[in-house]
Amino acid sequence: MRIFILSLLLQFRCGAELLSEMYGSLQSPNFPEPYPRDTELNWNIGVPDGFRISLFFSHFDLEPSYLCEYDFVKVKADGEVLAVFCGKEETDTEEVPTQQVITSPRNSLSIQFVSDFSNEERFSGFMAHYSAVDVDECSQRSDEDQLCDHFCHNFIGGYYCSCRYGYQLHTDNHTCRVECSGAVFKERSGILSSINFPSPYPKSSDCSYRIEVEEGFRLRLQFDPRFDVEDHPDITCPYDHVKVGSSHSCPITHTLRCLLIGSVSDPSRKQRVWTVLWRSVSRVHPDRQQRRLHPFPQR
Amino acid sequence: MRIFILSLLLQFRCGAELLSEMYGSLQSPNFPEPYPRDTELNWNIGVPDGFRISLFFSHFDLEPSYLCEYDFVKVKADGEVLAVFCGKEETDTEEVPTQQVITSPRNSLSIQFVSDFSNEERFSGFMAHYSAVDVDECSQRSDEDQLCDHFCHNFIGGYYCSCRYGYQLHTDNHTCRVECSGAVFKERSGILSSINFPSPYPKSSDCSYRIEVEEGFRLRLQFDPRFDVEDHPDITCPYDHVKVGSSHSCPITHTLRCLLIGSVSDPSRKQRVWTVLWRSVSRVHPDRQQRRLHPFPQR
Repeated sequence: MRIFILSLLLQFRCGAELLSEMYGSLQSPNFPEPYPRDTELNWNIGVPDGFRISLFFSHFDLEPSYLCEYDFVKVKADGEVLAVFCGKEETDTEEVPTQQVITSPRNSLSIQFVSDFSNEERFSGFMAHYSAVDVDECSQRSDEDQLCDHFCHNFIGGYYCSCRYGYQLHTDNHTCRVECSGAVFKERSGILSSINFPSPYPKSSDCSYRIEVEEGFRLRLQFDPRFDVEDHPDITCPYDHVKVGSSHSCPITHTLRCLLIGSVSDPSRKQRVWTVLWRSVSRVHPDRQQRRLHPFPQR
Repeated sequence: MRIFILSLLLQFRCGAELLSEMYGSLQSPNFPEPYPRDTELNWNIGVPDGFRISLFFSHFDLEPSYLCEYDFVKVKADGEVLAVFCGKEETDTEEVPTQQVITSPRNSLSIQFVSDFSNEERFSGFMAHYSAVDVDECSQRSDEDQLCDHFCHNFIGGYYCSCRYGYQLHTDNHTCRVECSGAVFKERSGILSSINFPSPYPKSSDCSYRIEVEEGFRLRLQFDPRFDVEDHPDITCPYDHVKVGSSHSCPITHTLRCLLIGSVSDPSRKQRVWTVLWRSVSRVHPDRQQRRLHPFPQR
């Protein structure tokens, strides 16, 4: 029995009440009657991801003390103290909640009420109201660090991304890619550019183009020297890259006259451009034909 | 069979799709492929009370026509047309949604898409996204027409009121009343004023005070001429009033020496003040004692 009472007392002193509704209120013990001495009460407010918590004190009257060392209300979030209140009126060293609304940085907030062993007067305590507030994820980020590649749609409790016409949402649900594979070019010559050229190519895209010229010819490619694809000072093409080679989509018998150009971009924002010219050259006199291959302005 | 097909056709032309999720999207038929001709589609978006609906078109490309008489998208709420769109670019006579967000005045919104019997070109149609938006009831009203007497607490989907310390929320859940009944005064004389005097008395309060003087005396009341309680030009005291009389709380044997003063205020904002002085006068020489009864300054 003694243990039971002790455990009840400990619970009253230290146990935290969990508040998980989308709104509610909390108050000092016995409110609106004066609160008891030598008491500690804790409330942990938790709401779903995608929300923050706003807290408003509609009444506040605690024993005043220098730096709130006697009775106080402490508001914390993510381990950081957001505010400590005591007394009834603001002083140089002590704060009261007045009409300010406290908003948690994320979806949890904890409130601690402590009264010390003695109260010189009788203080009526506090009454506080909280509510979950929707986070507008779409308006939080800067342009450089957008959540969504094209469109961001906020809803209560979350957001989703969508893409401009002609693009598909990547499986990462944030970047927009284009469908750009499967094209086959059979002309004797042509120019192939990165998507959206001269605008930067889209992020998170994986394009492949097959160029195949007639028998007796072979392919010669020349990239525009203004080739500008995200690079790295030490590692060869770890992010975006353009790859030229044959593949299973080019029959083995078609060596040199069939090439696959693959262009891969990652989800980062450093998209650029590239252009390649292809020309079919006779296998007999490749050099003579090559001389004409200077279509791009030199740097 | 013919009837079944006809009913299917009618449904396709006129049936409205009900969207009751808290967010979602809608698009022209076959999107992103061009929409068919001779088609009508309707969507009715409905979200719970306490929310509004925001609508955003991420893509829009309809056949242009003068005043959108051929193909169009019409947005309506509560029977009123909020917008009519057609074409792909704004003109002097036709609107496109561009980047604007349409917000419904209340919790429903309907969208109608109509294409006529022929399209000269192929138009890709539209893609739109909607989401429920919380209404902050507390910040919507002016000071004169506040939802809550003292404190208004918004939450997602609604709001509630609370009162300052010392007041109770009326059963109307909006006004704040004080507990002001049951006081008994037994002094030979005294002054009784409306609550909060000289500030206006609170709304929605029903106070009663009993004054009872010694046997052999009777009560004489005198109201301060600055008596100011909400009145009416034609009807006697239909709203707030102060009532003087005996009641079951005054024993029958105590006639004239026990009075009940009741003060009632309604939920309107026109609170004022009143003050009454009481004095016990001898039943033997009432006139002589009355002469001293001029405590208030005359108007």
